[in-house]
Amino acid sequence: MNEAAITLDGWYVLHDFRQMDWASWKQVDPELRKQATDEFVAFLDELQQADDAKTGAHAFYTIVGQKADFMLMTLRPTMDELQELEARFNKLTIADFTLPAYSYVSVVELSNYLSGESNEDPYQNPHVRSRLYPQLQRSQYVCFYPMDKRREGNDNWYMLPMEQRKELMRSHGMIGRSYAGKVKQIISGSVGFDDFEWGVTLFSDDVLQFKKLVYEMRFDEVSARYGEFGSFFVGTILEGEKRSTFFNL
Amino acid sequence: MNEAAITLDGWYVLHDFRQMDWASWKQVDPELRKQATDEFVAFLDELQQADDAKTGAHAFYTIVGQKADFMLMTLRPTMDELQELEARFNKLTIADFTLPAYSYVSVVELSNYLSGESNEDPYQNPHVRSRLYPQLQRSQYVCFYPMDKRREGNDNWYMLPMEQRKELMRSHGMIGRSYAGKVKQIISGSVGFDDFEWGVTLFSDDVLQFKKLVYEMRFDEVSARYGEFGSFFVGTILEGEKRSTFFNL
Amino acid sequence: MNEAAITLDGWYVLHDFRQMDWASWKQVDPELRKQATDEFVAFLDELQQADDAKTGAHAFYTIVGQKADFMLMTLRPTMDELQELEARFNKLTIADFTLPAYSYVSVVELSNYLSGESNEDPYQNPHVRSRLYPQLQRSQYVCFYPMDKRREGNDNWYMLPMEQRKELMRSHGMIGRSYAGKVKQIISGSVGFDDFEWGVTLFSDDVLQFKKLVYEMRFDEVSARYGEFGSFFVGTILEGEKRSTFFNL
Amino acid sequence: MNEAAITLDGWYVLHDFRQMDWASWKQVDPELRKQATDEFVAFLDELQQADDAKTGAHAFYTIVGQKADFMLMTLRPTMDELQELEARFNKLTIADFTLPAYSYVSVVELSNYLSGESNEDPYQNPHVRSRLYPQLQRSQYVCFYPMDKRREGNDNWYMLPMEQRKELMRSHGMIGRSYAGKVKQIISGSVGFDDFEWGVTLFSDDVLQFKKLVYEMRFDEVSARYGEFGSFFVGTILEGEKRSTFFNL
Amino acid sequence: MNEAAITLDGWYVLHDFRQMDWASWKQVDPELRKQATDEFVAFLDELQQADDAKTGAHAFYTIVGQKADFMLMTLRPTMDELQELEARFNKLTIADFTLPAYSYVSVVELSNYLSGESNEDPYQNPHVRSRLYPQLQRSQYVCFYPMDKRREGNDNWYMLPMEQRKELMRSHGMIGRSYAGKVKQIISGSVGFDDFEWGVTLFSDDVLQFKKLVYEMRFDEVSARYGEFGSFFVGTILEGEKRSTFFNL
Repeated sequence: MNEAAITLDGWYVLHDFRQMDWASWKQVDPELRKQATDEFVAFLDELQQADDAKTGAHAFYTIVGQKADFMLMTLRPTMDELQELEARFNKLTIADFTLPAYSYVSVVELSNYLSGESNEDPYQNPHVRSRLYPQLQRSQYVCFYPMDKRREGNDNWYMLPMEQRKELMRSHGMIGRSYAGKVKQIISGSVGFDDFEWGVTLFSDDVLQFKKLVYEMRFDEVSARYGEFGSFFVGTILEGEKRSTFFNL
Repeated sequence: MNEAAITLDGWYVLHDFRQMDWASWKQVDPELRKQATDEFVAFLDELQQADDAKTGAHAFYTIVGQKADFMLMTLRPTMDELQELEARFNKLTIADFTLPAYSYVSVVELSNYLSGESNEDPYQNPHVRSRLYPQLQRSQYVCFYPMDKRREGNDNWYMLPMEQRKELMRSHGMIGRSYAGKVKQIISGSVGFDDFEWGVTLFSDDVLQFKKLVYEMRFDEVSARYGEFGSFFVGTILEGEKRSTFFNL
Repeated sequence: MNEAAITLDGWYVLHDFRQMDWASWKQVDPELRKQATDEFVAFLDELQQADDAKTGAHAFYTIVGQKADFMLMTLRPTMDELQELEARFNKLTIADFTLPAYSYVSVVELSNYLSGESNEDPYQNPHVRSRLYPQLQRSQYVCFYPMDKRREGNDNWYMLPMEQRKELMRSHGMIGRSYAGKVKQIISGSVGFDDFEWGVTLFSDDVLQFKKLVYEMRFDEVSARYGEFGSFFVGTILEGEKRSTFFNL
Repeated sequence: MNEAAITLDGWYVLHDFRQMDWASWKQVDPELRKQATDEFVAFLDELQQADDAKTGAHAFYTIVGQKADFMLMTLRPTMDELQELEARFNKLTIADFTLPAYSYVSVVELSNYLSGESNEDPYQNPHVRSRLYPQLQRSQYVCFYPMDKRREGNDNWYMLPMEQRKELMRSHGMIGRSYAGKVKQIISGSVGFDDFEWGVTLFSDDVLQFKKLVYEMRFDEVSARYGEFGSFFVGTILEGEKRSTFFNL
Repeated sequence: MNEAAITLDGWYVLHDFRQMDWASWKQVDPELRKQATDEFVAFLDELQQADDAKTGAHAFYTIVGQKADFMLMTLRPTMDELQELEARFNKLTIADFTLPAYSYVSVVELSNYLSGESNEDPYQNPHVRSRLYPQLQRSQYVCFYPMDKRREGNDNWYMLPMEQRKELMRSHGMIGRSYAGKVKQIISGSVGFDDFEWGVTLFSDDVLQFKKLVYEMRFDEVSARYGEFGSFFVGTILEGEKRSTFFNL
């Protein structure tokens, strides 16, 4: 097998972006609206139990601008559980007042480029495990975007020799690492699952760090010559009381 | 005739992806909703009869994420039968609570690249027949994507000499074969029928194998230089009781 | 005038692709639904009168997959008549239960590449006339796609010398001619009328011939280097009783 | 200032393409429908007064195919007047039965490439004035499309020296001039106003001349190497009685 | 850190483009319509208080053509405030009669290319501050467009050496400066926040200056070889009485 194609894979991930149909939502009887909000908050609380038990994770953010009103990101050990959570969401009352905006299916991934050589089973390594099965801190801001490696004329990532890709990824990774403590990155692979090859989810308490990180990387050859980017979504956290406040009128 | 353009063609295929309009579906009277679900399940059972009689095949999966809620894939000896099944679906009650999401029209195809030389009529060869008129196992997961061979500048598949294409496809096919027993692939040709040149449908009981297979192939020159991909859809099986459960509230 | 830009032009053509809004259609009172269907069939019968009188032509097919439910193709001596037919269709009752899916405006065209040299007025040549003002046989299948000649980097059709284009088109045309008796082709020009440069409409009683023809051509340099293709639509004929049956529930 | 960037600019132009929502329109009470049509025709008559006074111009055409049902093109000395006309249209009753289809914002433009050298103020030249502030004849047909000059690899219009652009535009303009008397062209610039760099509006009493003109130009290097085209719209005139007839059932 | 990636960042910016659903708006009871308009105008007046206190800024313009009916641009010190303003807008009554058209999330930015060398903290420099936290004059016209620097083949901005980018930006900036007094430009960075890398907002009392500026720049190598542009929006100011007049029938 092509060495570069070997990855470590963790939890499956669904990013679910939704628009609120505010006009219809406002026409709902206030009592029913409260019930629907409570039902949704209870669903989110239940998701939190998986976070607490470390059997999964989730993040819930409002998205700035018209691309979506909120994003619910769920991580689970199987694709089937993601599907069940999506089905359960669709059956909530509040779902009837949302419109699909965007979604992304992937699996948390560590690439082979950065791995050392060892006889150890990486899935038993606690550091590796904490990255494949991440606990999500409640950072104030989130950023999500999907991306491809380019395959165009002379800029064809997949035709480069393994050594060159490894070298390029090393310097690329160093930019990422220089943001340690400021930005938490989750890379998830989506080849065969969704329209781009990777999803990138960033968390930070300083939203400007997203811009600094992505812009600095853009001058790095991996992004400059080989990066193709989809839509960028940026949002602020919805937690505790803020969750129901957001849906209040 | 251009030797490369010769293909063996089997059953015609329609991939039909649909969104549920859950909000409207929930407003239907429960009794009517049950009737509509039963009617749909009966339609699916009737499809199964063709599978059993080996006069056709079908697959029914829910799709993860917002691209669709379910996919119904039907295979039949004639295009007319596909059209009739589509017309019959449209006249089911449940169809009124679905929205079109995506569809793909193609025909199961074996390319000339991998064929040996023989005087035998390939359509009488049992191995060939089993691939052109495939029985579909009820695997847990499905993956579908359409694709083209690139025709751009120096990366123009259709300008390569036959021998080179044959050689490239041989090594490409070897990757596919290394997944035998893990992933079942159905390649269907859609030149003249739909917007890409081929559809690829993968079945597996291990969803991660889709990612491994497609990612490994991406480093192979056929995909790296010549592959252009459309949307990827991934889903989990809806069979037996799960079919009606999916539509229950 | 650039010699290559000289074309012979025949009837104007409108391809009109429509979705049925089946959910609304089903809610119509059966009596009204029958009246609306009868009104539409009467409109189609009236179109047939122009076919019979050879003052125009039309084709009516259902389209496989979600791109459209049916295609009505009309050919007339003037653009104004196409506009009037479109306006009349819009005023039919059944039109209220359709949604626009796609349309294409063009004029039947014979290119200058294949013409011999003669002093004769080609518009008086019966063979030319039969191609510019075609009678449409009621073939079982139809295929439609729009296309451009590429203008990109070194693959720029419009920068090639006339002699080279003529030579390329000659070999291209020979593939088409090898399908004589199996596929009837109507080429219509749409430069200045619609978003691509040509529309291609194929008719056949063997749907697989569409795939064979288009795929074989794709290896020909005219398509391989210079062809850019839009969406492909494939369908089966709606004639006689089948027309009203299609709209019955 | 870059010499090539100097243009003469005349009236501002809004092309407004609308779909009719025929299904809703048919459900309107006939009396109200007549009132709404009369109100719209009165609005168009008022536009005509500006044409008569040469303080502006307008054109009203039905569009063939599904891209739009009609196009209202208005030309005025200021952007503000265009905005006011658009606002007034939106407040007409008939506007409630239309859907937006496409629009284009530009200003009538004469490029610097074709200008001679003179000390005269071109805005005082009657010939120039008649082109910048055009009176629109009521030709039977209209064609509209937006376009860009390409900036790609070796085909980058904006990197060519002024002399070369001037030479290319001269031969390009000669094709246009050879259609004098058959096709009236209005070129309007939209850099900074809309998504393409120019809009081209053609008027003719022979619809085939649009195809001949645009196709002939496509072999000219300016279009062949440097032209990028948006959607093409073609239509037939709605004037006098035809205006209200079009909306009658 | 890559020197070029260093930017000075000021207020966060949300451009919010909306369509009016005029048909529904007209059906609202006149009294309620007046209340909804008054509520919206009061919201805009409250935004003005931030302008007056220099704790933020806003601009409110109607957009010409069908891309949007109006644009509300808000600038605030934090992303959270933008999110709150967006949430408050959504809860206004008038919002129920609007449809999302486009939005853009960015932060006012000064690039490193034009900076001199100094030990001074630029954030304390009054000139820099006035550009990062801009007061918006009530110019008659606005123009907005998003843009990228190209990364394609030999035209890859991000692979150029810093010195060359600096030199190119210097000449580019000189064109901008030649419009001082005629056009006010606000450049905002959106890498990591939205789909393009920058947003450009231009204000002027002479709408033709937008065309002149953008067109002149297009011949400059920075735009000619390296500029990729999104949609262009142009509009006229809505202030004072004009705000409620716009929504009156």
